[in-house]
Amino acid sequence: MSTLGVVTPQSITFGTPLELQSGAVLKDYTLVFETYGRLNADRSNAVLVCHALNASHHVAGVHADVNGQPLPRSEGWWDNMVGPGKPVDTNKFFVIGINNPGSCFGSTGPMHVNPDTGRIYGASFPVVTVEDWVNAQARVLDTLGIERLAAVLGGSLGGMQALSWTLQYPERVRHCVAVATAPNLSAQNIAFNEVARRAIVTDPDFHGGHFYAHGVVPRRGLRVARMIGHITYLSDDVMETKFGRELVGRERGDAPHYSTQDIEFQIESYLRYQGDKFSDYFDANTYLLITRALDYFDPARTFGGKLSLAMARAMAKFLVVSFTTDWRFSPQRSREIVKALVDNGRDVSYAEIDAPHGHDAFLLDDARYMGVMRAYFDRIARELLAESATTPEVAA
Amino acid sequence: MSTLGVVTPQSITFGTPLELQSGAVLKDYTLVFETYGRLNADRSNAVLVCHALNASHHVAGVHADVNGQPLPRSEGWWDNMVGPGKPVDTNKFFVIGINNPGSCFGSTGPMHVNPDTGRIYGASFPVVTVEDWVNAQARVLDTLGIERLAAVLGGSLGGMQALSWTLQYPERVRHCVAVATAPNLSAQNIAFNEVARRAIVTDPDFHGGHFYAHGVVPRRGLRVARMIGHITYLSDDVMETKFGRELVGRERGDAPHYSTQDIEFQIESYLRYQGDKFSDYFDANTYLLITRALDYFDPARTFGGKLSLAMARAMAKFLVVSFTTDWRFSPQRSREIVKALVDNGRDVSYAEIDAPHGHDAFLLDDARYMGVMRAYFDRIARELLAESATTPEVAA
Repeated sequence: MSTLGVVTPQSITFGTPLELQSGAVLKDYTLVFETYGRLNADRSNAVLVCHALNASHHVAGVHADVNGQPLPRSEGWWDNMVGPGKPVDTNKFFVIGINNPGSCFGSTGPMHVNPDTGRIYGASFPVVTVEDWVNAQARVLDTLGIERLAAVLGGSLGGMQALSWTLQYPERVRHCVAVATAPNLSAQNIAFNEVARRAIVTDPDFHGGHFYAHGVVPRRGLRVARMIGHITYLSDDVMETKFGRELVGRERGDAPHYSTQDIEFQIESYLRYQGDKFSDYFDANTYLLITRALDYFDPARTFGGKLSLAMARAMAKFLVVSFTTDWRFSPQRSREIVKALVDNGRDVSYAEIDAPHGHDAFLLDDARYMGVMRAYFDRIARELLAESATTPEVAA
Repeated sequence: MSTLGVVTPQSITFGTPLELQSGAVLKDYTLVFETYGRLNADRSNAVLVCHALNASHHVAGVHADVNGQPLPRSEGWWDNMVGPGKPVDTNKFFVIGINNPGSCFGSTGPMHVNPDTGRIYGASFPVVTVEDWVNAQARVLDTLGIERLAAVLGGSLGGMQALSWTLQYPERVRHCVAVATAPNLSAQNIAFNEVARRAIVTDPDFHGGHFYAHGVVPRRGLRVARMIGHITYLSDDVMETKFGRELVGRERGDAPHYSTQDIEFQIESYLRYQGDKFSDYFDANTYLLITRALDYFDPARTFGGKLSLAMARAMAKFLVVSFTTDWRFSPQRSREIVKALVDNGRDVSYAEIDAPHGHDAFLLDDARYMGVMRAYFDRIARELLAESATTPEVAA
C-alpha cells in the first residue's frame, strides 16, 4: 500500500511551439505531471522520473475518487521505489513524474484534437523521439523553476530518457540513474517492436490510424502486441517457474483437451489476460509512437556508432543498473554504457543484480536492487546537504 | 545445386483408420512421400527423415516441370544434408521423407474433404500429435516392407518425431539422430506459439477456420505468425550481424524518415518479406495444428515429468546435436535428452556445435556440424556392412 497517500495530477499548457526532431512542430500542447515531496529552498532536491512504454506521470501515491477517497488499485507504477522512507525518499526529494507527449494518459497525444485541422490527430500525430520528450520535460522544469536536477531516473525506455538528459542538458543533471536500459535497440529488439506494430496496423479496426472516427479500437492488434511484449519482459526461467507446462484446470500429467484454439496451458491464459487488459486502456497510435521512439533512440548514431564519443558531453555522475536475466536489455547493453562513461573518465557506479525476473525486475521488489537504489539516493541526499551547508546564507 | 537430380513424389492412400491420440480417428487418408537412393537387398539401409514446421516430404533433389525439366529453386529443404556424397549419403542409404497428416503439402490435411461430411475439413481437422505422425509414418514403412530403420533423423520438431520413434517403436530403430530439438516445449516456447495462433485466429479472414469457403486467406495473421517465428529461429547475434540498425536505402548515421508505419530498418524489411512469402503458401489451419503438436509433445508427461523414466523404453543408439546460439531449443534442452539416455545406459554421442546462426543452424552448412553428421552416418554404414558380412547367405 502506498505510504504517500492521495496525489493529484497537475497540467501545464504550453503556447510556445515544440520543434521535434523529425522537423515537425507541436504548436501547442499540454503536459500532465505529478509531484511528490517538497522542493527545498534552493530548489536543488528535484528528481525527475521518466516513464517507459505503458506507464505515465503517475509514479507513486494513489488517486482519489470524486469524494476524495483513495481509489482501489490506483497506486503509481513505481510506488515501491518512490515515497516517504522509500529508496527515492520523498521526505528528502521533490519527485516529478511527467507524461510524455504522444502518450495516452493526459498529455497531448493522438487522441487529442489537432488545432490546425480541428480533427483528432490519430495516425497524423507527429513522430516523437526520446530527445523530443526530454525537451518537453525540460519546459516543465523551467515552469517549476528547477534549473538543475538532483537526479534524473528511469528504467527501460525511461532509462534512455535519463541518458539523453545528460547529453541534451549536461549542466542541468547532477546524477543520472539508468536502470535496465540500453544505448540503442538491437536488431532483435526492433524486430519484436515491428511485429507488434504490424499486428496493430493490419488489424482492420485500425482504419489507417483513424479508428476513433469509426467508434472502434484495433483490439486484436493491441492484444497480440501486448502478448509479444510480455514474453520479452519475463525471463525464460521465471516463465518456467511460474507457468511451466501447467494445464488450465488440470493436474500435471493429465492429458490435454486437444484443441488448437481453446486455452490449454496456464501461460496461454496469462498472456490472453494481459492482452485483453491492455487493449482496454492503451491507445494503438500511442503504441506505434512509443515503440518508434525506442527504435530511433541512438545517441551514438551521429558519432559513427561510437558511444564513447557520444557520451563525452555528459557531466553527470551515473548509477547504471542491470539484471542478469533481462534478455530484452541484457547486462551487456548496460556495460556498453558503463564503458563509454569510463572511457570519458566519468564517475559511474554499476550494479548487475542477480534477479530471476527478466526485464520486469526493474519494477519489482528485489532486496539487493532496492538496497543499491536506496544507497545511491542517500549519497545524493548527503551531497545536497553538504553543499547547502557550505552555501553562503545570502544565496538561499 | 542438388546432386540428386529430379525426384518425384509418391503417395499411398490408406483405408485402415488411423486412431489419433485425442481419441479422434482419420478414417482414410493419403500420405505423400519421396525416396532417394536404393533399398538394399536385406532392407536394412533405410533412413527416415522427419520434417519440421513448414517443411515437407521433399527433403532433397529437385522437382520437374511437365516437360521433365528441373524447376528452378525447387531443391528439397535438406538437400545439403541428403544426396550422393552428402553426409546422409544416398549412395549408401535409402532415404525416405514423408509429409505428415495435417500438413498442407499433399498429405491429408485441413484443405482436404472430410469423407464423413463431404466438406473441407478446415478447423475441424482433428488435432494430430507427434505420436500420431510417427504411427502414420510407420504405416508407410510397413507398405515399403521396411521392418527396421538404419536411422530416424530430424531437426527441431523433426527431432521430436525421431525421439518418439525410439519410444513408440523401439525395436524398429537402430539409430536416432535428433538435431536442435527438445524433450518438450518450455513455457516461453508455448508462449510464442500461442501469440502466433492468436494472430491467425483473430484475423477476421480466418472465419473460425473455414476461410476456404469464403475465398480468402487469413494473411495478416499468417504474416505476423511467421515474423514471430523468424525472430525465434535466428540468434540475437546473427540478427545483429546481418541487419543491426541498418536503415533501408540509407547510410549508417543518416537520420531516419520518422514514420510509424513505413519500413525504416533492414530487419523490418526482412521480416515483412518473410511474412508475405509464407502467407502465400502456408495453410493457416496447418499452422495451428503443427504448433499444437509442438506444444503437446512431452514423452515425460505420463512419467511424472521424469524424462529418464520415459526414455527407458528406447533401444536405439543416439546422436544428439545442438547449437550454442539456439535460444529456441537451447543446448541445455539437448543435454536433458542426453542425461536421460545416459541414466539408462544407452549408447549416445552428443555434439554441441559452436555456430552463430541460432535455431536455423540445423538447416545450414556449418563445417563442424556437417562433419559430425557425416562421421555418424559413416559409422552407421560401416555397422550395416559388418552385419551384412556376418549374415548367413540364406537370410539375404
